[in-house]
Amino acid sequence: MENNTVAQAATSELLERARSVKNASIPLAQCTNEQRRSALIAMADSLASSADNIVEANLQDLRRSEEAGLNDALLARLKLNKDKLNLAIKGIRQVSSLPDPIGLIQLQRELSEGLYLSRITVPLGVLGVIFESRPDAVMQIASLAIRSGNGAILKGGSEARLTNESIVDALQKGLKVSDVLPESLCLLTTREESLGLLSLDGIVDLIIPRGSNELVRFIQDNTRIPVLGHADGICHLYIDSEVDLKQALNIAIDSKCQYPAACNAIETLLLHNDIASSFLQIAIPRFHELGVTLIGDEISQGYGIANKAVETDWSSEYLDLKLSVKVVTSIDKAIEHIRRYGSRHTDAIATSNKESARKFLHTVDSSGVYHNCSTRFADGFRYGFGAEVGISTQTLPPRGPVGLDGLVTYRYFLEGDGHMAEEFSSGVKSFTHRDL
Amino acid sequence: MENNTVAQAATSELLERARSVKNASIPLAQCTNEQRRSALIAMADSLASSADNIVEANLQDLRRSEEAGLNDALLARLKLNKDKLNLAIKGIRQVSSLPDPIGLIQLQRELSEGLYLSRITVPLGVLGVIFESRPDAVMQIASLAIRSGNGAILKGGSEARLTNESIVDALQKGLKVSDVLPESLCLLTTREESLGLLSLDGIVDLIIPRGSNELVRFIQDNTRIPVLGHADGICHLYIDSEVDLKQALNIAIDSKCQYPAACNAIETLLLHNDIASSFLQIAIPRFHELGVTLIGDEISQGYGIANKAVETDWSSEYLDLKLSVKVVTSIDKAIEHIRRYGSRHTDAIATSNKESARKFLHTVDSSGVYHNCSTRFADGFRYGFGAEVGISTQTLPPRGPVGLDGLVTYRYFLEGDGHMAEEFSSGVKSFTHRDL
Repeated sequence: MENNTVAQAATSELLERARSVKNASIPLAQCTNEQRRSALIAMADSLASSADNIVEANLQDLRRSEEAGLNDALLARLKLNKDKLNLAIKGIRQVSSLPDPIGLIQLQRELSEGLYLSRITVPLGVLGVIFESRPDAVMQIASLAIRSGNGAILKGGSEARLTNESIVDALQKGLKVSDVLPESLCLLTTREESLGLLSLDGIVDLIIPRGSNELVRFIQDNTRIPVLGHADGICHLYIDSEVDLKQALNIAIDSKCQYPAACNAIETLLLHNDIASSFLQIAIPRFHELGVTLIGDEISQGYGIANKAVETDWSSEYLDLKLSVKVVTSIDKAIEHIRRYGSRHTDAIATSNKESARKFLHTVDSSGVYHNCSTRFADGFRYGFGAEVGISTQTLPPRGPVGLDGLVTYRYFLEGDGHMAEEFSSGVKSFTHRDL
Repeated sequence: MENNTVAQAATSELLERARSVKNASIPLAQCTNEQRRSALIAMADSLASSADNIVEANLQDLRRSEEAGLNDALLARLKLNKDKLNLAIKGIRQVSSLPDPIGLIQLQRELSEGLYLSRITVPLGVLGVIFESRPDAVMQIASLAIRSGNGAILKGGSEARLTNESIVDALQKGLKVSDVLPESLCLLTTREESLGLLSLDGIVDLIIPRGSNELVRFIQDNTRIPVLGHADGICHLYIDSEVDLKQALNIAIDSKCQYPAACNAIETLLLHNDIASSFLQIAIPRFHELGVTLIGDEISQGYGIANKAVETDWSSEYLDLKLSVKVVTSIDKAIEHIRRYGSRHTDAIATSNKESARKFLHTVDSSGVYHNCSTRFADGFRYGFGAEVGISTQTLPPRGPVGLDGLVTYRYFLEGDGHMAEEFSSGVKSFTHRDL
């Protein structure tokens, strides 16, 4: 067990703040669909009228972070100009119009005469969300939380402190003119609070980390609260022996290059021995043009790849224009490689052989298994969920891209008229188990 | 954080055994419904023909445990005579006839022309099951695992070692004449192996503890693998001011006495002030007759309860003929009490007022919320699931009584014809998101 627990109890101040979110989440869970939708619109309106303050706060954060020597990539993520803010506000309005995930009847059954069971979706309660920079994520997650009837404790990065304070202030002002209590949202800013948040099992029902793999893994190792997230996205494309090589190359290029920093971009290309040479002949110049560094095993080096892949490459998530290539002698070897090194995120096969496709799709145990298409489709919006709460690489549901329904649970409602279990044990009454 | 991690890496022998279950689980996941059903029948047949050996092994375990001074309750749980064995074998045959939880299509959607998404249920992979005594549970869980296409690593108590060895031997012999590999099941017997099992994340997908609250809590605190189970069942019955007192008393008696050792039995009775006196007048003699010890708060003591309840009583799971009683001034106070002391298992209201019922059912955040019926219905069989894997008191699904569908997950299948994300970003193609 690599559980390096950082024991850090919540301070009484944090406990009090968390409890006030919990208390506000109770009436929030009772709100109607219309009340939650209106709350989102009020949040969006309030952000729009606070836009100048938010952008100004962000400029201060940017200035301070620049002076502190934050690197360009992080500064770009921290930056929130009018355009990005307007996009986030538009996103909140879109979330308001998504179908309600609450109150869905999943099961309705007569257990016996006069005894009725139903299973209905309800909010989880309180979400704990931990961000690294990215102030736009604060707005997105806050709106998903309220839409699904959940309170949220939001912990942003210290470099975005002023921006986040100004955003949460605007969101709460919006809630004030709605039927949802402003205390449904709260912002934490210090690292101590973040560690304390991880200890709030019993108050916080789900932790959603938004940040680096290291952040996610740290959180998973240090809390008893369920965590929705993925630490790694090591995705593969296997190109089979019977295949349209040109199509396969296009899929490989899209899977690697369309947005290399995404978790659903591929890191490794597995090539069947029969096509490896001819594939690489057309692929190497294309990848070269696109600025992709190829590294390969011994055989693929023989086919023209200049750089050597080492053992650690197969389990590396580059998140960059870099791709490892391995030649395999069979589809089974490809599947074996994916089982050993993959992260059960999304893996694809390019083949014109239906039997090979069937085998790959049914044997690779990843949340997404694809045939003749890019791994980049692994995304809540592209799946048509209307929103993406996160992508989960755990085995248990929810896995893969998770939409609003990842923020709800269910409750069993049983209504009777004096029904007792003893009547059924003794045989006086019997179960009908009739679905309604 | 109360995470008292017991760092205990798996030995290389345990790792090897676990990996061989994992390897066997891969073809098992590909087996058809019919193959898995036949495997269960072969397991049942093999147990039947090994019955004498199993009962003899159990007698030896009983003799040894008796000499070691095991208490009567535990000896009773350890005992496996012909009748109990036959019941377990019958149970396996019943599980074989349950509807297949695998291959269910949960979503089928055209994302764009020629690009099809489906979400289909698949086995989890490998289950880790940890028992205390109860050799019948070994047979039950092994059959649920194979039925749902999962391998299982079974860890029984050392007092039941010979019985469990003889059971697993018979189960594997049954599998040998089926299409399922006998290596899909393995038995661990030592405490070291049990601790090692908890470290097998990456191989084991779900831990199912079957035993005391202490066992469950220990496991939850010492593994990164998801745990299906509940540590506490602190259930309540609240009797409202407008109520059929006689019916309410029957519900209270059934909820407490029908099987007091069950997690779904009530531990606390909450009484509205308006009916407390008249209710206790009829209830005290009835509970007395039934051998139930009542302990109460100050007000209920004023109404005739002899023993005083102290603060720790409200969070105690007696699992015995003992019931704590508290008088509250309103339904809100009852809900507050349940929120504070309950374990979100099952809580009931007895009332003839529909508005009070609605309020209780929608505000109490337990996995089961009941109106005018006994809490003892919280059970997979009674819900009509055909089997019960366990009862979960976590907030996230699956919660409450969990049937076979708690042992499966899903995978997203995406099939295209050279589809690339870039075509959609650039606007060449567009999403249709049409459910099929």
